Amino acid sequence: MMIVMKPNATSEEIEHVVARVRSVGARAHISRGEEVTLIGAIGDREHVQRLELDGAPGVAQVVPILKPYKLSSAQFGGGERSVFEIGGRRVGGEHFALIAGPCTVESREQLLETARACRDGGAVMLRGGAYKPRTSPYAFQGLGQEGLRLLAEAKEIYGMPIVTELMDVRDIEPVLEVADVVQIGARNMQNYTLLSEVGRAGVPVLLKRGLSATLEELLMAAEYVLKEGNERVMLCERGIRTFETAYRFTLDLMAVPVLKQLSHLPVIVDPSHAAGRRDLVMPLSLAAAAAGADGIIVEVHPNPEEAICDGPQALRADEFADYAAAVERAAAVAGKVFAAA
Amino acid sequence: MMIVMKPNATSEEIEHVVARVRSVGARAHISRGEEVTLIGAIGDREHVQRLELDGAPGVAQVVPILKPYKLSSAQFGGGERSVFEIGGRRVGGEHFALIAGPCTVESREQLLETARACRDGGAVMLRGGAYKPRTSPYAFQGLGQEGLRLLAEAKEIYGMPIVTELMDVRDIEPVLEVADVVQIGARNMQNYTLLSEVGRAGVPVLLKRGLSATLEELLMAAEYVLKEGNERVMLCERGIRTFETAYRFTLDLMAVPVLKQLSHLPVIVDPSHAAGRRDLVMPLSLAAAAAGADGIIVEVHPNPEEAICDGPQALRADEFADYAAAVERAAAVAGKVFAAA
Amino acid sequence: MMIVMKPNATSEEIEHVVARVRSVGARAHISRGEEVTLIGAIGDREHVQRLELDGAPGVAQVVPILKPYKLSSAQFGGGERSVFEIGGRRVGGEHFALIAGPCTVESREQLLETARACRDGGAVMLRGGAYKPRTSPYAFQGLGQEGLRLLAEAKEIYGMPIVTELMDVRDIEPVLEVADVVQIGARNMQNYTLLSEVGRAGVPVLLKRGLSATLEELLMAAEYVLKEGNERVMLCERGIRTFETAYRFTLDLMAVPVLKQLSHLPVIVDPSHAAGRRDLVMPLSLAAAAAGADGIIVEVHPNPEEAICDGPQALRADEFADYAAAVERAAAVAGKVFAAA
Amino acid sequence: MMIVMKPNATSEEIEHVVARVRSVGARAHISRGEEVTLIGAIGDREHVQRLELDGAPGVAQVVPILKPYKLSSAQFGGGERSVFEIGGRRVGGEHFALIAGPCTVESREQLLETARACRDGGAVMLRGGAYKPRTSPYAFQGLGQEGLRLLAEAKEIYGMPIVTELMDVRDIEPVLEVADVVQIGARNMQNYTLLSEVGRAGVPVLLKRGLSATLEELLMAAEYVLKEGNERVMLCERGIRTFETAYRFTLDLMAVPVLKQLSHLPVIVDPSHAAGRRDLVMPLSLAAAAAGADGIIVEVHPNPEEAICDGPQALRADEFADYAAAVERAAAVAGKVFAAA
Repeated sequence: MMIVMKPNATSEEIEHVVARVRSVGARAHISRGEEVTLIGAIGDREHVQRLELDGAPGVAQVVPILKPYKLSSAQFGGGERSVFEIGGRRVGGEHFALIAGPCTVESREQLLETARACRDGGAVMLRGGAYKPRTSPYAFQGLGQEGLRLLAEAKEIYGMPIVTELMDVRDIEPVLEVADVVQIGARNMQNYTLLSEVGRAGVPVLLKRGLSATLEELLMAAEYVLKEGNERVMLCERGIRTFETAYRFTLDLMAVPVLKQLSHLPVIVDPSHAAGRRDLVMPLSLAAAAAGADGIIVEVHPNPEEAICDGPQALRADEFADYAAAVERAAAVAGKVFAAA
Repeated sequence: MMIVMKPNATSEEIEHVVARVRSVGARAHISRGEEVTLIGAIGDREHVQRLELDGAPGVAQVVPILKPYKLSSAQFGGGERSVFEIGGRRVGGEHFALIAGPCTVESREQLLETARACRDGGAVMLRGGAYKPRTSPYAFQGLGQEGLRLLAEAKEIYGMPIVTELMDVRDIEPVLEVADVVQIGARNMQNYTLLSEVGRAGVPVLLKRGLSATLEELLMAAEYVLKEGNERVMLCERGIRTFETAYRFTLDLMAVPVLKQLSHLPVIVDPSHAAGRRDLVMPLSLAAAAAGADGIIVEVHPNPEEAICDGPQALRADEFADYAAAVERAAAVAGKVFAAA
Repeated sequence: MMIVMKPNATSEEIEHVVARVRSVGARAHISRGEEVTLIGAIGDREHVQRLELDGAPGVAQVVPILKPYKLSSAQFGGGERSVFEIGGRRVGGEHFALIAGPCTVESREQLLETARACRDGGAVMLRGGAYKPRTSPYAFQGLGQEGLRLLAEAKEIYGMPIVTELMDVRDIEPVLEVADVVQIGARNMQNYTLLSEVGRAGVPVLLKRGLSATLEELLMAAEYVLKEGNERVMLCERGIRTFETAYRFTLDLMAVPVLKQLSHLPVIVDPSHAAGRRDLVMPLSLAAAAAGADGIIVEVHPNPEEAICDGPQALRADEFADYAAAVERAAAVAGKVFAAA
Repeated sequence: MMIVMKPNATSEEIEHVVARVRSVGARAHISRGEEVTLIGAIGDREHVQRLELDGAPGVAQVVPILKPYKLSSAQFGGGERSVFEIGGRRVGGEHFALIAGPCTVESREQLLETARACRDGGAVMLRGGAYKPRTSPYAFQGLGQEGLRLLAEAKEIYGMPIVTELMDVRDIEPVLEVADVVQIGARNMQNYTLLSEVGRAGVPVLLKRGLSATLEELLMAAEYVLKEGNERVMLCERGIRTFETAYRFTLDLMAVPVLKQLSHLPVIVDPSHAAGRRDLVMPLSLAAAAAGADGIIVEVHPNPEEAICDGPQALRADEFADYAAAVERAAAVAGKVFAAA
């Protein structure tokens, strides 16, 4: 950490900062420049981060030098990228994971028809929501337990690992009975209670970036899970909020290469929620794959016009195989191959 | 709801939309313009909102006409602004509520010294965190139960209603034993589980706007609480995320008059978290009061240099009375008077 | 245009709006709903747009139905995408235009060496700045006339059309002597004086999106050029401003498919300025090409460490051919072929 | 400037950076920490800023320590805040400048009626646009020369200094004949050609912050004017772009106290353009004044319903005196007095 003193800082103020740095067991390294004095705080990262010197007398600016995350950082574990297994499928490295399924589980027929199309098209996991976070308390909130039961049935029939969202810590047991991957939604990215619980549960986690979360905050959220000893976290970019009104969210594909530089964790892209419209899903998916994403999670429905939730953005089940083939070509440009079942 | 058809929409597509509108029990009102056809869907708000026509064949745009919130809207209850009581203090209307206290409860001495300064300076409620949401899992997470115990003691000694944050639904019982107002933090604004629970508990709620939440989303979050029959919700503006890096968050004071137009609920401003620096708290507080806020929630510490959390933004306890007097003058410009104990 | 009246609008207020609509020669189409009354203003687009009814008594909201741009819209010219010629190269349609060169013209040697590498690697046009918009008045502002002279020399030797920026209307004559395409920078996207002048000059224009311009504003800026009878405008996405601090700008690749839906004009992506770092340029370029961009404009330097300006983001000239080959593969995924010289 | 090396930077890379720092005449100050090495570049600010080390081999991060602006910084001129005279009125310091008038000069009658109401209400300068930057090329672009002539007449009759916008450097002469203050609009904040010209002209400048400009960029734009020897620059906050759609722009009132800390220049607030609606202008004005603004520039019209441009946001001329009286009370809270004519 580097503390930049104000041009007119007194020697008492400088000494006070130095004393503060030493009080947490760190060394203080003073550079007196022509205009300002800099004080480097060198020592144990966690101790140094506990220094709260912004706004202290004579302090102009505090510049963090080290990243605040550790277990999720690219340096952790010798600098290799994580590759791990989920229900027999490998995620990360050269493997490209296509995760597909309905936004919401609506009925047995809808789920099974979608699951078959996804499996046949090359998807490696099945997504489907039983508990849905909805902006409006008046909107459909998901089938709940019945949705979980249907997911279990689809899993048995088609042999695909299941990705489903957990919103309430009190639902963790029934969700874990069927989920191979627990999804933490964007609105819950900083629900630390939930993060710690899924960390302790040891189940693979798909962690969505909050609507206005920085990459650093996303990695700090992942750190909450990793800290509990759970190493299987996938980071998911799903669109951020900007001033643009022509689309629901702005899919931030720069996050893909940058997260891969900052962290060893796999990076998945959700093109459906940012787009909000089916016709944008294909170009965004190709772009995500070409940018080097480790996978895509996409919404599919046998009859989007009749969908209870987010129909306009769902790919049609009968067009899924063509979609998947195009994504496979784009992934190949970035040196990735589709994960085999 | 208004559905704008594409210029080249076919009559089949128009008829399909009309049929869809009728299928939810609404009336369809067709206007054929020179360039496009518009279809108005008129009927029960909730039914109409269930129409998912974005992206349907021939549809160019779907324009919502009615607000999606109801209980929190300005029209609800005959258009009068809410005034309610919390521990004997009135909030809303002409009353200006100054809520003050430490970011985090650190010790008995720190809390009681702060509480006394706040009460003497004219604060009407005491804030203090026992459970702290922290970006980093390595940071201090609050004193928990011990913090609640200290808050109870301060309440008994100084007779001030207590505002404290709830993060985990499983902590609701001990929190309710001491809290007169439950604070829902910005990161939990869309934690629907939590919102519904505090709604059911019937305790007054201070609901902070999420870092990138629109005003409409804030009101929808309030709706989750109101829907359970709990009418005492205070909306809290605490800074949003923008591109500006000169400050931590951008305090959005336009939210004050606009929320007061959209909703009957009281609007409180938190100047401390946006600023992140003590020297900005005074001008932002004066501005908030002059803009017509119904109150301010501000952080105070007897010795900010030694604070565990957010010290740089805390007002000094011994300067609090001067601060409160200045805020009182600014509130008067907007026609507000400080709530009396 | 649709005018939504307030729930409590009086009949006088409604009549006043209707009269106002008629006063500009438009028809008023009234729909009385259960909660609100809607008034459609149907007629000549330009007349209707002149109605300024926001905030008029009784008016809740004014919803534009038609897009405010015309010549740049996808509907213009029968719905076909523009394909045009620049110095013998075709831009738009199935053609992918790779435009490359130094940020700034620094010297004869630097420019010619870069130009050769770009041409050999498959670039179809040469970019290079003679006039540079710099945030700081103390920074290098470009070689000016001498830079233009060097560009003319490179053009003669390598036979590549030249793309260079115009900042000051008073420089238009010397710039037009060498430029095959005039670049309008992001900071000048709404410099209407400049837009109209390059419109009148009839020279092809590369129009960069402003740092926080919406797509609609970009198309309105293009409209200023098109209105003067100049049809050869390329739209350029170069990154927008968001809250994220991990990169300089957030490259908005959703703009690619969406601009192609909204407009017939070719869409070019500049990955260099958003990234600000060489190592991000390749993944962003692959993503842009796979998303369906009509071209890329990228910075190249023979020795980036010695560059006067933006060296860190420049591709190395001796690696350009490999870069171009990868981009060609990504463009193929989107059905595009590199434009031949 | 502080250069943070990567954890695995080699000694060659470190030496290369050190050599680079010395090559611009600066001293290199090396701190070897446990995890990373820091290199401070100490020396002449302009030389150091010319170092482009981001992305150089082994470099993790480059942290600027000094601000890039100089003449506009708070330190310049001994740390005193600027107070200067414009047409006999003092701006800055304890003086609060209320600048009012129509958005656009429409007619002799409209301008004179507005001017009288503004003068009578206590406004110290008259604003009015003769050249209007419009998003649409089809919108009214201002009366031009005729508008300037009318402003000259109003100035003669009411004796108020005139504030009017300059968009095209080629119009500078006629504008200077009438303008006491030249306004540079938000879209032209980084039109460096224009900034340098008004700098050389020596006329007082009202410089509006760009829609997504950081405070640092605003100060750098001011630096372009100051560098030419023109010291009379007023900074103007007028709303920035955020994700919020409930208002046109988000007025950033934090900019007021922060700009006053960073710079000695007066800070003016424009509440009209952010609001876009009359009913928000009053609370935003009170907030701006209470936050410590040095003045307000606000739009007034005798008959807003008939205004050609931005009528919905204009205050009614016959309500201006009440508005001004309220603003005066809010300014007093911040220790400011209305400038006397």
